[in-house]
Amino acid sequence: MEMLNYLLEVSIQPGDFTGFTFFIGSVSMLAATVWFLMQHGQVDKKFKDSMLVAALITGIAAVHYFYMREQWIMGFPGIEAAGDDATALADAYEKASPTELRYIDWILTVPLMVVEFALLTGVGMKKLFWASVVMLVTGYFGESGVTEMLDAQTWGAISGAAYFYMAYEVGCFTIFGGPSGAVGNALTGGSGKIPQAGRMLQWFVLVGWAIYPVGYMAGTDGWYSDVFSFLDAGAMNVIYNLGDAVNKIGFGMAVWYAAKS
Amino acid sequence: MEMLNYLLEVSIQPGDFTGFTFFIGSVSMLAATVWFLMQHGQVDKKFKDSMLVAALITGIAAVHYFYMREQWIMGFPGIEAAGDDATALADAYEKASPTELRYIDWILTVPLMVVEFALLTGVGMKKLFWASVVMLVTGYFGESGVTEMLDAQTWGAISGAAYFYMAYEVGCFTIFGGPSGAVGNALTGGSGKIPQAGRMLQWFVLVGWAIYPVGYMAGTDGWYSDVFSFLDAGAMNVIYNLGDAVNKIGFGMAVWYAAKS
Amino acid sequence: MEMLNYLLEVSIQPGDFTGFTFFIGSVSMLAATVWFLMQHGQVDKKFKDSMLVAALITGIAAVHYFYMREQWIMGFPGIEAAGDDATALADAYEKASPTELRYIDWILTVPLMVVEFALLTGVGMKKLFWASVVMLVTGYFGESGVTEMLDAQTWGAISGAAYFYMAYEVGCFTIFGGPSGAVGNALTGGSGKIPQAGRMLQWFVLVGWAIYPVGYMAGTDGWYSDVFSFLDAGAMNVIYNLGDAVNKIGFGMAVWYAAKS
Amino acid sequence: MEMLNYLLEVSIQPGDFTGFTFFIGSVSMLAATVWFLMQHGQVDKKFKDSMLVAALITGIAAVHYFYMREQWIMGFPGIEAAGDDATALADAYEKASPTELRYIDWILTVPLMVVEFALLTGVGMKKLFWASVVMLVTGYFGESGVTEMLDAQTWGAISGAAYFYMAYEVGCFTIFGGPSGAVGNALTGGSGKIPQAGRMLQWFVLVGWAIYPVGYMAGTDGWYSDVFSFLDAGAMNVIYNLGDAVNKIGFGMAVWYAAKS
Amino acid sequence: MEMLNYLLEVSIQPGDFTGFTFFIGSVSMLAATVWFLMQHGQVDKKFKDSMLVAALITGIAAVHYFYMREQWIMGFPGIEAAGDDATALADAYEKASPTELRYIDWILTVPLMVVEFALLTGVGMKKLFWASVVMLVTGYFGESGVTEMLDAQTWGAISGAAYFYMAYEVGCFTIFGGPSGAVGNALTGGSGKIPQAGRMLQWFVLVGWAIYPVGYMAGTDGWYSDVFSFLDAGAMNVIYNLGDAVNKIGFGMAVWYAAKS
Repeated sequence: MEMLNYLLEVSIQPGDFTGFTFFIGSVSMLAATVWFLMQHGQVDKKFKDSMLVAALITGIAAVHYFYMREQWIMGFPGIEAAGDDATALADAYEKASPTELRYIDWILTVPLMVVEFALLTGVGMKKLFWASVVMLVTGYFGESGVTEMLDAQTWGAISGAAYFYMAYEVGCFTIFGGPSGAVGNALTGGSGKIPQAGRMLQWFVLVGWAIYPVGYMAGTDGWYSDVFSFLDAGAMNVIYNLGDAVNKIGFGMAVWYAAKS
Repeated sequence: MEMLNYLLEVSIQPGDFTGFTFFIGSVSMLAATVWFLMQHGQVDKKFKDSMLVAALITGIAAVHYFYMREQWIMGFPGIEAAGDDATALADAYEKASPTELRYIDWILTVPLMVVEFALLTGVGMKKLFWASVVMLVTGYFGESGVTEMLDAQTWGAISGAAYFYMAYEVGCFTIFGGPSGAVGNALTGGSGKIPQAGRMLQWFVLVGWAIYPVGYMAGTDGWYSDVFSFLDAGAMNVIYNLGDAVNKIGFGMAVWYAAKS
Repeated sequence: MEMLNYLLEVSIQPGDFTGFTFFIGSVSMLAATVWFLMQHGQVDKKFKDSMLVAALITGIAAVHYFYMREQWIMGFPGIEAAGDDATALADAYEKASPTELRYIDWILTVPLMVVEFALLTGVGMKKLFWASVVMLVTGYFGESGVTEMLDAQTWGAISGAAYFYMAYEVGCFTIFGGPSGAVGNALTGGSGKIPQAGRMLQWFVLVGWAIYPVGYMAGTDGWYSDVFSFLDAGAMNVIYNLGDAVNKIGFGMAVWYAAKS
Repeated sequence: MEMLNYLLEVSIQPGDFTGFTFFIGSVSMLAATVWFLMQHGQVDKKFKDSMLVAALITGIAAVHYFYMREQWIMGFPGIEAAGDDATALADAYEKASPTELRYIDWILTVPLMVVEFALLTGVGMKKLFWASVVMLVTGYFGESGVTEMLDAQTWGAISGAAYFYMAYEVGCFTIFGGPSGAVGNALTGGSGKIPQAGRMLQWFVLVGWAIYPVGYMAGTDGWYSDVFSFLDAGAMNVIYNLGDAVNKIGFGMAVWYAAKS
Repeated sequence: MEMLNYLLEVSIQPGDFTGFTFFIGSVSMLAATVWFLMQHGQVDKKFKDSMLVAALITGIAAVHYFYMREQWIMGFPGIEAAGDDATALADAYEKASPTELRYIDWILTVPLMVVEFALLTGVGMKKLFWASVVMLVTGYFGESGVTEMLDAQTWGAISGAAYFYMAYEVGCFTIFGGPSGAVGNALTGGSGKIPQAGRMLQWFVLVGWAIYPVGYMAGTDGWYSDVFSFLDAGAMNVIYNLGDAVNKIGFGMAVWYAAKS
């Protein structure tokens, strides 16, 4: 009967809103993968690689969400038991929060999103690729605390700078009328496959990717802690899950929409 | 030998009628998914997206039914042991009844059914989408009891109102000769892909979806408790399983039938 | 080491002939499913649905055979330990014999076989469908003993009557020169897709389905117990496994053979 | 930590050469199945059934190799612990040696190889089919010791006779210039689809299948025990694994090679 | 709760950089397999076999990486616990380091890479095949220590010699202007399918395969131990994982790139 109790305990529990979003995220990613793979057979030949990359992005995310969900669900009883005890709560969150799995997911999927961008706009991907690596590695150092070289807010600042560099590179700021970058020229000049889709992806980078820094600030300590004091590590995971859904599934849907029309 | 007993215990047991319907539901959903995916290759190009959405609906349901089935089967010995002890029985039902999993399933599949409807009739899906979210969130609050803001019957009333709004929006009441809504016009005007299928889907919303409120009233307390006193939380799950089979598999079969002819 | 012993114990053991047939059944059903799904791509368009239904029948059976096999293999040590002690043996057989799983399988696959029959012969399936439900529900009541309303042999008689009604309906008795039923006319008149295959299916219903009553009589008590005293609940499962192989795989092979030629 | 030790213990261990061949066998069979299934889409229509049967043979073998591998890996620590103690060693080998699983595999795959042969050469398969059943059933009786009717070497002699009968039937001895059998005529007369492939398959039956009797003699007691005294039950499994790789994967590759050219 | 702790313990832990690379490797191999399988349907008929072999290589690697990852993750707590205690650390590394699984992977995938090479360049594969077997078997003997016939550095020297022989055979040294081998002639003479891809594969053999000896020297004792003293068995696995990613995924991408253009 002990094992029975254990198994019932690790299923999703009433009131575990963060667990809800992990569950929904995992199944959504799986369904999106099936959708993109099946659409791969329907779209025009020149968009097939893009659809396949979209499927790989959500497929890889699906695999990691199933693992992350398990870790969260198993760690949740500890969070509930900790109640208002700050030390026990922080410890419980650390066990339940799948930081490592999340960054393993991102180190694979973010470069693939760069590839997707390059496939559609026809611009080079090298600078974007390395900027994304910097963004992710420094983000992990800040969030996991595996190195004490710098503190969370400094690592976060470097990660954020890499993000702004990427946003600049893909020409996000030309949306506001600023000087057009290489991508902007590519989009205007029409050398890319689908300028409109490229522009839509710019919005994803500018707005969708901005969700992540909010999550980061919710889950780490820094000058922003007072602003985000109403958020905890559970909220951080909800924000990250939302960001992934918007950027991975939405990104792919934008590509599919462009390919279909 | 303890583990052996445990494993035999959690398999489906004689007389567990609710468990039977969970088992049948899970395999039916899986078989329907294979059917819709294979028919996706056979139907005309303009119906392929509809067949794929039908496959995603039953596929997502299949995944959740396998989890729900497990939770029920594992919790059933507790229900049997509780016998006529009302408190123990209520507690055992709460452990065995997969309320959270069911609403996670619905929050993904009901909006997809709205998409399916919109794909076939050509009307906008925004209002329907938000109404379905209201219907599901208030339904979950009422059934799970995670918030004590309102009681089960009041949450149920809001959920039911959202349902009636949706039924009105999709023009269900024009079936009885009432004033035609936007969907009714779309169906009459023939702007949708397959008017007949749209009309069939109206019947599903009107009759098929009405199965769920009955299940809700069987599983919660309210003014209706006397009427449904012969039903318990096991019956609620049977009714929900029946509703899912009718609406998810039947819905998709209707689309397939329209696409084939 | 205890767990090691446990795991070795639940693998298939020398001399467990019934377990052998469960193993062979599970893998055969899986292989047949792959075969029918792959042939689906090769046959003429008008037979595709039939091939797919054949694949669903064996696919659903495969899923249940993997579960049934597990239950039997786990319960077998109890049967061996019981030896000649009649009470302990009956109890061990009850634990090992996957009665519930078998009827869950049949409640899904037998109606699909009715659909298959209707697809090929072009006759209505309503009467056959309901007769199959009666046959299965009464069979389950008799075999499981969940209701004491009637005894096993009476339930069996009702189940058998439903079987004979179905055999009559599909025109099995016209094989012996009797008056032709609706199906017989359909077959003679050539309104069905493939009259020969329809006739072959009649033989399956008449001869192949007759295997099941023998299994039923081997596993329950009744006037026939003396006749079948040399058979036990292990034999019942062997007979059922044989019947499933003949009827599910053979049925599908007959359809494939007709579709191919 | 006990469970941790347990899990590390059941992974493949240094020096377990037999376990190595089980691992390599399982993954090879899986890879071959993917290969044959994908080639099914590439070959000419008249070879598609042959490719599919080849895929089923390796696919069924793959499933059983994963089970057999697990049983061996779990039983290996017992073999190591037994050291030179002959009784303990024989007992440990009996637990680790997956005799039942192996014959379940063969009872399904050997008849499929007969089907493959018949598909390519166009000769009847009935006599071959029954001879293969005799060969396998008597082989199992001899190796498992479930019946004491005859001893291992006598059962082996019957099994071997069935093998020679099959080799004669498929015309293997005409390779040496002997009188040509029905198959030989079929091959010469060119009524088969691909005479060359048929001839290649004859070599597989003559040479490849002859690997199994060596394994049998390594694992059982008989007049040959002195000759094979340097081989033990671990060696028997290595020989069987080698035979399966040659005959199942090689057989299919030969068919694919013929279909491709 | 013990099981809960156990499960959290075996998930990937902060600071386990080697575990990170195992995780990333496993999912990358899986994603690459999906990519190559889907591209198989897009490339020209003459490159289909090459794409399929590329998919088999990464697919087989994916299976083994999932096993290897599990072994490492489970063994990591032991490594952490050992700290600076050299004996305990060596023992913990031996348990965590999946040497056997790695060589089982390589014994299957390296010959497939030889096949890939031969498919593209049109030269014979026999000599390369046997050289690869020598390279792998001697490498395993050296790394696992299952035989004490020779020490690790001597086995490594033989393995390295086989590697240099292969590099010479495939004409790697003609890159530097040396005398051209058979492959070089094939590449120059244009008898291969795609000379450029062949030349790219030469670079993979020369540079990519050279990663493995570095890993070998990091993980074994020999004259080189002083040079590599800053590397431990964890580093060896990181180097091997890097080598596999470069050679298996990169190799396949090179073939795909050639097939596409």
